[in-house]
Amino acid sequence: MAAIRVVLVEPRNEGNVGAVARAMRNFDVSELVLVKSCPLGAEARRRAMHGVGILKSAVRVDRLDNALRGADVIVGTSGIDTRNEKRFARVAVTPEEFARRIGSVEGTVALLLGREDFGLFNEELLQCDLLVTIPASGEYPILNISHAAAIVLYEVFASRAAPLRLRQASGLEKERLYEAFEALLDATSFPAHKRSRTKVMFRRLLGRAVPSKWEFHALMGVLQRATKRIWRLESAQVRR
Amino acid sequence: MAAIRVVLVEPRNEGNVGAVARAMRNFDVSELVLVKSCPLGAEARRRAMHGVGILKSAVRVDRLDNALRGADVIVGTSGIDTRNEKRFARVAVTPEEFARRIGSVEGTVALLLGREDFGLFNEELLQCDLLVTIPASGEYPILNISHAAAIVLYEVFASRAAPLRLRQASGLEKERLYEAFEALLDATSFPAHKRSRTKVMFRRLLGRAVPSKWEFHALMGVLQRATKRIWRLESAQVRR
Repeated sequence: MAAIRVVLVEPRNEGNVGAVARAMRNFDVSELVLVKSCPLGAEARRRAMHGVGILKSAVRVDRLDNALRGADVIVGTSGIDTRNEKRFARVAVTPEEFARRIGSVEGTVALLLGREDFGLFNEELLQCDLLVTIPASGEYPILNISHAAAIVLYEVFASRAAPLRLRQASGLEKERLYEAFEALLDATSFPAHKRSRTKVMFRRLLGRAVPSKWEFHALMGVLQRATKRIWRLESAQVRR
Repeated sequence: MAAIRVVLVEPRNEGNVGAVARAMRNFDVSELVLVKSCPLGAEARRRAMHGVGILKSAVRVDRLDNALRGADVIVGTSGIDTRNEKRFARVAVTPEEFARRIGSVEGTVALLLGREDFGLFNEELLQCDLLVTIPASGEYPILNISHAAAIVLYEVFASRAAPLRLRQASGLEKERLYEAFEALLDATSFPAHKRSRTKVMFRRLLGRAVPSKWEFHALMGVLQRATKRIWRLESAQVRR
């Protein structure tokens, strides 16, 4: 699994640097390199929150070359530039695509974030192996650099994380649920001509909701209870 | 295509509010509602950049209920993932999954972001149809609220090439469905101590399934029919 090195090129706002450190901590990335950075003070530390350790261990350099030393893949971030659409230097991938691509990379990936006002210069972009652009509004596509960092690091983290999954109801359990639903239709003398499509509706709805085991049991409880109540009341009437 | 309404609940830091407005502008979302917000001044405007218009037109309210008026789907963001399906109130989807699910929603989606320190309270989370959790570091999963907003809005923006599908049940229709479910619980003398969590289970399940208008009507028919059948049979017993 690749290690990500975040490289901020000439950041001017210490609050942004702090916010980037926080986002790094949120997504388990720890190596921060600052190229010709503004001084970092109380505001940077305040915005970093629990990422303050990353801020403290950040490496400061005077030239981009020094920030890229030992990097196996160099990745630039760039806003959408429609004027230069055709220029190869601007052919970029989405953050999602980026995360997928570096999934198989070993070593160090340097992720470059440019100046708040001018981004990365052309000669800097030309040094990159890959460009990432965050899809954004045609009217105002320029993101805050800490937002850009958060989104790209989030995609990398999400692509690595084990999918967040509940213990799902099994196929068998779902079948039992459909039967319980059908039993309720029976109990209510549901009109025959509507029955088939109503059963399919229920199946589809549950299929989309992907119920957990707990939800399966809870819903079974409600359906069975209603059905039993109806039969008990009806048999009491018959006996009368 | 759903309109997204961003609802910030008791933000304490005006800079964060400004940064959220900027992220909204970056992803073509314009409706901002602030519940018991801190005052907004120069710092909020500075951080908003070209999102300052969103800041100016933001609606301020004193109660969450007022922020949710007219919303068809209520979505909470939560940093806590218990991985325990019994804590149904906390069963959350990823931002990507959220974007996919609301892809077919018509109407207004209220996206709730909680306090910087305490997030959303439990009684607020219980009002939500769907919860979104951003996968993040086990060591420090608490994101800055503008980062959380940026990531969720980015996912929605990125997913919006997808075709529209069914006509969705409206918020009002879903409320009627929840009432019909509750009426069935009443009719079956459902145990009081299980009632609240069973109702929330049903709400969450439907929230995830995003029912169509037709599915709404079909399910209403089944629930109401069962309830009526029980009451009629019971009143017949009483009369006997």
